[in-house]
Amino acid sequence: MEQGFKRVAVVGCGLMGASWASLFLAHGIDVQAHDPASNSEDRLRHFVGHALAQLRELGQTGQGQLRFTPDLSQALENVDFVQENAPEKEELKRQLLAQMDGLLPKPVIVASSTSALERSKIVADCTHPSRFIIAHPFNPPHLVPLVEIVGENEEVVSRARAFYEALGQKPVVLKREMPGHIANRLSSALYREAVYLVAEGVASVADIDAAVCNGPGLRWAIMGPHMTYHLGGGQGGIEHYLKHLGPSQERRWASLGNPTLGPDVQRKIVEGVVEEAEGRSITDLEQERDRLLIGILRLRNQIRDDAG
Amino acid sequence: MEQGFKRVAVVGCGLMGASWASLFLAHGIDVQAHDPASNSEDRLRHFVGHALAQLRELGQTGQGQLRFTPDLSQALENVDFVQENAPEKEELKRQLLAQMDGLLPKPVIVASSTSALERSKIVADCTHPSRFIIAHPFNPPHLVPLVEIVGENEEVVSRARAFYEALGQKPVVLKREMPGHIANRLSSALYREAVYLVAEGVASVADIDAAVCNGPGLRWAIMGPHMTYHLGGGQGGIEHYLKHLGPSQERRWASLGNPTLGPDVQRKIVEGVVEEAEGRSITDLEQERDRLLIGILRLRNQIRDDAG
Repeated sequence: MEQGFKRVAVVGCGLMGASWASLFLAHGIDVQAHDPASNSEDRLRHFVGHALAQLRELGQTGQGQLRFTPDLSQALENVDFVQENAPEKEELKRQLLAQMDGLLPKPVIVASSTSALERSKIVADCTHPSRFIIAHPFNPPHLVPLVEIVGENEEVVSRARAFYEALGQKPVVLKREMPGHIANRLSSALYREAVYLVAEGVASVADIDAAVCNGPGLRWAIMGPHMTYHLGGGQGGIEHYLKHLGPSQERRWASLGNPTLGPDVQRKIVEGVVEEAEGRSITDLEQERDRLLIGILRLRNQIRDDAG
Repeated sequence: MEQGFKRVAVVGCGLMGASWASLFLAHGIDVQAHDPASNSEDRLRHFVGHALAQLRELGQTGQGQLRFTPDLSQALENVDFVQENAPEKEELKRQLLAQMDGLLPKPVIVASSTSALERSKIVADCTHPSRFIIAHPFNPPHLVPLVEIVGENEEVVSRARAFYEALGQKPVVLKREMPGHIANRLSSALYREAVYLVAEGVASVADIDAAVCNGPGLRWAIMGPHMTYHLGGGQGGIEHYLKHLGPSQERRWASLGNPTLGPDVQRKIVEGVVEEAEGRSITDLEQERDRLLIGILRLRNQIRDDAG
């Protein structure tokens, strides 16, 4: 490890925490895991066993030691870094972060996986707020490379960024905090229009989903929206695109829907998803997703390696 | 070919038309191509040569005959199906469709690739409007499977759908026409927020793009937004998700931005894309994209085959 983080605490061992723990272990980092819920250890070890097998397929074959403890202060002993994944409740997180602030030596960085809360609010009771960052992963973090970082101290942010990069993740750094960070805002924007098209009866839930994963979604696994429009502008690129098609983008924006998730729309969506799932369980669908995720990640690594 | 379409006219041979022609040829269909612009034939044959090599990598090794003619009526002689890809000008398309309507026997289906125009407007001058559909592809259609179909006659729509499916495409059928169809509306919705985050200085263009293709975009190549939230709801699926997180989606929607593409924002985007491209030309970027697209498509075919 470039950063020399040899022992990391994972606080909160739901899906996010368990997935983070797996990623750290597969890079040879020892993990001290903590969760107050009963049964946490069993669920964690079961998840980690499965995830480590997936990570081996990606060439991540490290063998960190996993220890579990129901005692928070024990979990934090002698760690170099903390990844916090407690429930998304502001009051609870604010107290937990302040508690950890009191227990940890000052140089230890604490990264919160929060997706919905704002950093300034959850660090409000900390004595050393600058060592706290948000490092928001995407589900499941051991297979999805994005980490969205929000912090106030450049050195802390840059050490955290280097740590995640050394794990093969793709961190991006926000210049200022924003509710929902980047990717969940973009997802919500897309979803609002998807719900509108269902509500208006333009197409079935299955066809709207198919339109994404056989169309723009296929390209978004390769490049983001700005670069996509850069290629949509022909040899003139994004400059040509914005000059010639900017006005039609703005007209399209004005025509987008503004639905609400009332009972009728919810029923349409639920029925549509059930139809689309064609009897596959959540577990079946997760396995399919993970198999394709691993395949796409291997492909991207291979093409990157070929390109030198 | 299930549909017995042995000879197809491609009217308009820009990028879209050339890509469609390649797809038809690689399935053993003869193509009669037409474009009034000088140099069209050379550009078309050059594109087709390159695209056919890509399609061979996907196992599409048919060898249709390509004929080019600057004469529209010659191009339409004895064809079973027409794919129209003229410039996106309503007046021009309306006249062209009416002209083709007069030249073609009644059973021949004409599919317009239009992305921005509405079907009801462009068929306004046709005597047999019901044989006209929109079949909107995604760039480049020979590698991106989505085809969005809008029509008024069920039998016409269902024959066209079967035709595209036999080519390995993934058609979806709109229940009613909608400006921008499905996928471009969803893309625009996502892009509006991406532009907002640039305008507000939340992150760089490169980081916003990276957040997509290393996060939600990676999942959108596998499943659409509804199915993604189905898996975001844990074992309770989409019903649980909507019940518990629906209100936070609605709050997020209310917080999304409403930017305009003024000169300052355009400049920020152009500079950001140039930085992100790191010196790679449009052609370099297209080659990278196509290489990954082919890889992802092969992977999906392979996993589908394995699943039986």
